[in-house]
Amino acid sequence: MPLGGGPLNTFGTAFRVTILGESHGQVVGCVVDGAPPGLRIGLQDLQRELDRRRPGQSLLTTQRQEADRAEILSGWLDGHATGAPILCIIRNEDKDSSKYAEVAVKPRPGHADYTARLKYEGMSDLRGGGMFSGRLTAALVMAGAIARKLLAPIGIDVAAHTVQVGDVHGGRGMTIRQIRERVEATPVRCADPTAAKRMEQAVLAAREAKDSVGGVVECVAEGVPAGLGEPWFDPVESVLAHLLYAIPAVKGVEFGSGFGAAAMRGSQHNDPFVLRGGRVETATNNAGGILGGITDGMPVVFRVAVKPASSIFLPQATVNLATGKEDTIEIKGRHDPCIVPRAVPVVEAAAAIALADLALRRGLA
Amino acid sequence: MPLGGGPLNTFGTAFRVTILGESHGQVVGCVVDGAPPGLRIGLQDLQRELDRRRPGQSLLTTQRQEADRAEILSGWLDGHATGAPILCIIRNEDKDSSKYAEVAVKPRPGHADYTARLKYEGMSDLRGGGMFSGRLTAALVMAGAIARKLLAPIGIDVAAHTVQVGDVHGGRGMTIRQIRERVEATPVRCADPTAAKRMEQAVLAAREAKDSVGGVVECVAEGVPAGLGEPWFDPVESVLAHLLYAIPAVKGVEFGSGFGAAAMRGSQHNDPFVLRGGRVETATNNAGGILGGITDGMPVVFRVAVKPASSIFLPQATVNLATGKEDTIEIKGRHDPCIVPRAVPVVEAAAAIALADLALRRGLA
Amino acid sequence: MPLGGGPLNTFGTAFRVTILGESHGQVVGCVVDGAPPGLRIGLQDLQRELDRRRPGQSLLTTQRQEADRAEILSGWLDGHATGAPILCIIRNEDKDSSKYAEVAVKPRPGHADYTARLKYEGMSDLRGGGMFSGRLTAALVMAGAIARKLLAPIGIDVAAHTVQVGDVHGGRGMTIRQIRERVEATPVRCADPTAAKRMEQAVLAAREAKDSVGGVVECVAEGVPAGLGEPWFDPVESVLAHLLYAIPAVKGVEFGSGFGAAAMRGSQHNDPFVLRGGRVETATNNAGGILGGITDGMPVVFRVAVKPASSIFLPQATVNLATGKEDTIEIKGRHDPCIVPRAVPVVEAAAAIALADLALRRGLA
Amino acid sequence: MPLGGGPLNTFGTAFRVTILGESHGQVVGCVVDGAPPGLRIGLQDLQRELDRRRPGQSLLTTQRQEADRAEILSGWLDGHATGAPILCIIRNEDKDSSKYAEVAVKPRPGHADYTARLKYEGMSDLRGGGMFSGRLTAALVMAGAIARKLLAPIGIDVAAHTVQVGDVHGGRGMTIRQIRERVEATPVRCADPTAAKRMEQAVLAAREAKDSVGGVVECVAEGVPAGLGEPWFDPVESVLAHLLYAIPAVKGVEFGSGFGAAAMRGSQHNDPFVLRGGRVETATNNAGGILGGITDGMPVVFRVAVKPASSIFLPQATVNLATGKEDTIEIKGRHDPCIVPRAVPVVEAAAAIALADLALRRGLA
Repeated sequence: MPLGGGPLNTFGTAFRVTILGESHGQVVGCVVDGAPPGLRIGLQDLQRELDRRRPGQSLLTTQRQEADRAEILSGWLDGHATGAPILCIIRNEDKDSSKYAEVAVKPRPGHADYTARLKYEGMSDLRGGGMFSGRLTAALVMAGAIARKLLAPIGIDVAAHTVQVGDVHGGRGMTIRQIRERVEATPVRCADPTAAKRMEQAVLAAREAKDSVGGVVECVAEGVPAGLGEPWFDPVESVLAHLLYAIPAVKGVEFGSGFGAAAMRGSQHNDPFVLRGGRVETATNNAGGILGGITDGMPVVFRVAVKPASSIFLPQATVNLATGKEDTIEIKGRHDPCIVPRAVPVVEAAAAIALADLALRRGLA
Repeated sequence: MPLGGGPLNTFGTAFRVTILGESHGQVVGCVVDGAPPGLRIGLQDLQRELDRRRPGQSLLTTQRQEADRAEILSGWLDGHATGAPILCIIRNEDKDSSKYAEVAVKPRPGHADYTARLKYEGMSDLRGGGMFSGRLTAALVMAGAIARKLLAPIGIDVAAHTVQVGDVHGGRGMTIRQIRERVEATPVRCADPTAAKRMEQAVLAAREAKDSVGGVVECVAEGVPAGLGEPWFDPVESVLAHLLYAIPAVKGVEFGSGFGAAAMRGSQHNDPFVLRGGRVETATNNAGGILGGITDGMPVVFRVAVKPASSIFLPQATVNLATGKEDTIEIKGRHDPCIVPRAVPVVEAAAAIALADLALRRGLA
Repeated sequence: MPLGGGPLNTFGTAFRVTILGESHGQVVGCVVDGAPPGLRIGLQDLQRELDRRRPGQSLLTTQRQEADRAEILSGWLDGHATGAPILCIIRNEDKDSSKYAEVAVKPRPGHADYTARLKYEGMSDLRGGGMFSGRLTAALVMAGAIARKLLAPIGIDVAAHTVQVGDVHGGRGMTIRQIRERVEATPVRCADPTAAKRMEQAVLAAREAKDSVGGVVECVAEGVPAGLGEPWFDPVESVLAHLLYAIPAVKGVEFGSGFGAAAMRGSQHNDPFVLRGGRVETATNNAGGILGGITDGMPVVFRVAVKPASSIFLPQATVNLATGKEDTIEIKGRHDPCIVPRAVPVVEAAAAIALADLALRRGLA
Repeated sequence: MPLGGGPLNTFGTAFRVTILGESHGQVVGCVVDGAPPGLRIGLQDLQRELDRRRPGQSLLTTQRQEADRAEILSGWLDGHATGAPILCIIRNEDKDSSKYAEVAVKPRPGHADYTARLKYEGMSDLRGGGMFSGRLTAALVMAGAIARKLLAPIGIDVAAHTVQVGDVHGGRGMTIRQIRERVEATPVRCADPTAAKRMEQAVLAAREAKDSVGGVVECVAEGVPAGLGEPWFDPVESVLAHLLYAIPAVKGVEFGSGFGAAAMRGSQHNDPFVLRGGRVETATNNAGGILGGITDGMPVVFRVAVKPASSIFLPQATVNLATGKEDTIEIKGRHDPCIVPRAVPVVEAAAAIALADLALRRGLA
């Protein structure tokens, strides 16, 4: 057996989320611990977010059919949290593991097949990607829905949208109101209508080519009170990035000016403090709402780079671990040509969870 | 008093680092807990890295004069770790807090003055930036030096270099050997000699203009065994990004292809598995050595965006918190026009600490 | 809402157990994270221990009828752990919450009704004691069964027995073999046959008097390798006591000589080192197998004081929180006159979990 | 190197204490993280408690001469906590390691010499007991002094006293006021004057016989608000016992009725709820102020069994690890014939730290 034990699957200090389940197992679920007793939670709160993440919504996504019905099995009574751990699950229905037998010996490029095999010495559940499947983000989405309920009374709101697909760039720096008005109008979840159209075409072109395409999701949190975050070693960026990087396919995370800051001078980048309606704000927001790892009261803004989905239908070079020879794999099954649109509610969920944890650590909920 | 207590300043699960001290207090230091008993550590191991981070090395850096002599006060006997917590300190000498009085009422744009004041209700040590000062990265560097000693017998080596300053880009994707040969030859720590010269000029131009300039540091870890990282929620990217974002001025972190992945197709991005000398490797390394959050045996590669130093000598708009009116601040003192070169050993230290923690969690040290 | 969030219900560092569910909710369960991939686990392993804890086994226990069928919903494939979190549940069946309405306003002496109400501001699930019910120890027992599977290949075995009920004392200091031979022969789970008979009478007398009676459980762990435990602050005693005190009704925990050590001289108490078959052992075991917080290779021995069950059928004085006046409560329902016999498998489970965590932290599994 | 890394030496969730240093190293100290910014702390607060723990106070204690001067090196400015980690140290002066050479090969019965050697593979600092020395409780005492400052404004006060030495029992169940009036009047720190005299004689008799003697310390915390403690798995008993068992020589911990509960009936043990001055209290306090793991507003009462000091001056049987033969050791040096009196301030410190953590987790400080 590998040393050091199996993996540890809990995130958070005060608002704690444990992910469990497998793509083709009985359930996908989460345990949320730390939700304040009395917090109102409806099954529809979870369902609404699950429905946004659910597959089969358009031609841009996988055709796997799953009802993804949220159930809460503990910690919940008469529509409110009781203070005990909340177990949320969805049951897996449309499972067809037959196509995954090949994967055990011929790891798919870009997937966790190879590393999972090494780490778990062949003992992990590889069916449908097992615990590495993007399907487990449904659990994040349920936990995120609970986090949102906790954030709402504090005045914190979170919204994300697609700002890049392939080489198509959409407008950045929108307010939540602007995002909300338009994000669900297009299957790519881009709040910039012109770009959205072209993004859609980019996805369909990739799909046509039996290929996939990547993109960037931008997320904004408004109403975040100043003072969240713990320097050395829980700055807001660290806590958010930690959780965001747990989302499969994320390759980059940047805050405010992000990598653009590298090309700037301090005089451009520093956000001057100004008074607005008697309140201290900053004139610009290159900081992304965070100074010294601590929120400054401005919107928290970050972007997440999502790689092109690893499951493509072109033949790919791999190594056959049974024969010890180089080989080729052709992936079958139902897969998203672009996971960016479905990543949007997942990124929102991650942001909500991380902010709920930071807020709870400051006694704000 | 603020609710939820003060900040918690410890990183790591098995190899644990606590940062302590202040820029103008008595000491800056760290406690390293989890170093295996018997691990050989010399004061010179710490000193070598401290000397690389130390100010006053060239015209490109601040002129603050500090000996930065490493001392180990516990957990260390006859040149080896004993298994007890290791307390490392440097003493602060060249302190001149007079210039910081203004900061208490007129927060500097881009600094933590404002957020620290809110979070700690005026009770934090603001002298020289207190615990938010870049000077505390010296503590990270000492902990990183210990981490390197732990990593060496496993065969893990880490090196970083500057790949961008302002709009000057240098070569990326070098091996550690290539980096080591040239990185210390130029004050900007860029291993690409042509770019290095132009980067140097960019820094001097910013300095001349009483301004500062940002950049990007790339870091490579070679010899990382496959199987490190814990999915949901300690993937390698999460653990590294968590610590990297604790370094002041970091605005972005990306792995492998990073934000470039957004514009790619799956067929380009997926790294094909190949056999090299009987070993399974990948032909390319867009994954940055990490698949499904777990190391795959290829070099771990990431880049860090560093914003232009917030301390510039131009007058800047701020709000006077005493008068409640908009005001102007002119920063005095000794400051780096570009912190990227000094960030290089800090990024290496952070990488070493994060990898040491991941390795120790797998029982590898 | 109370500050600081709800409770956090996870134990362990490397072998982590989260408890969830409520006495009269849908399920009682646990999530076990950290079980090594490949660890063989059968449903019957869980069921065997659940059956030992199950109510309705004799006249000495409550007559609540529950099948307590173990189900594993995740992290488990083909009879082995996969490395993903293991979700185990039992479903609640014989629920009759009608008798608990009174408890919401008239807290039962000795129960958590009053403190739960204060802590959760009336939002906790009080039905059947909710998450405070002794029924949740079924979750511990399932986690303990998994822990035992992990301990077995290391050679660690754990057994407990009743050594006191009321004023009846049974033999102490038995080996696991001696305990196993006789512990299940009597309903009080006392391995000393003479005492067992008298303990049984003590329980029946308490039952007859509509009262309850307390006792002491002794637990032995054999085959524990030397070197487990982390001084400052995870000595073996701390880790075990931490978990043992989470078992409802536990009022005391002592190791080796325990409180008896107070009356001893050092020359009596110190266990001399001797050679036995070439191995270093101690001639006596007042240390209970632990020196300086670290196991010394001798059996780990501890005792747990269990208070008399709080649910008795005599009228008791309480305060009516609705009327704000002193009042009387008469508890109805099905309750154990003595919970000590059913505590035996629970104490074993707690010991197994704590030792599994300590062993896994040392890379032993 | 041993797997799983070295030990981890931090206690607490919100109020976190790391212990560092060695008996004969340069310093003994602690890092306190989580003290609210603005908390008033004076060096004299630390010194007062250190002086109570300090050796050489009477014939009942060791004659090692140490000034034990508290220093605070970080996180402290103008007499208050800044919110950054607080590093407290005392320097070791009266070190004579010559007497400890023998210990490396001939482990002392009852000491950690043998287990430390195994765990750290001979790499630990054995001089004067190293990190296992009772001297490290000075670090706990400093952290406890800071915890007390945090508890005072909440109204929580803590006091301990000796209630047993050898077979001499003193009065139990006193209020803090009663304890304070008399506890420092006698060298044994027993608040019951008649018993104190006889305890003193018991210690002197043990000393005369080149032997040592054990005892019991009782501790009371008054003013503890209802609602502290987290069920499954941080009940108040678990958190307190965890820390108390980290104190060297502790063999038992019991709350309220403790082991006495085993012999009681429920009708005796259950504490009836009553109204006192309009407040809900319990008529008796067998629960020790804790119901269901949560404080109920009554005084928290617990007792700690302290074994006779392991260092005695009689010849003792041991094994010579160099020769592999049974051997004899005669301990030299300066040692306490009874450590119970000096354990009193240490137990108070542990209680204060644990309660500070629980209070901070509830947002009370």
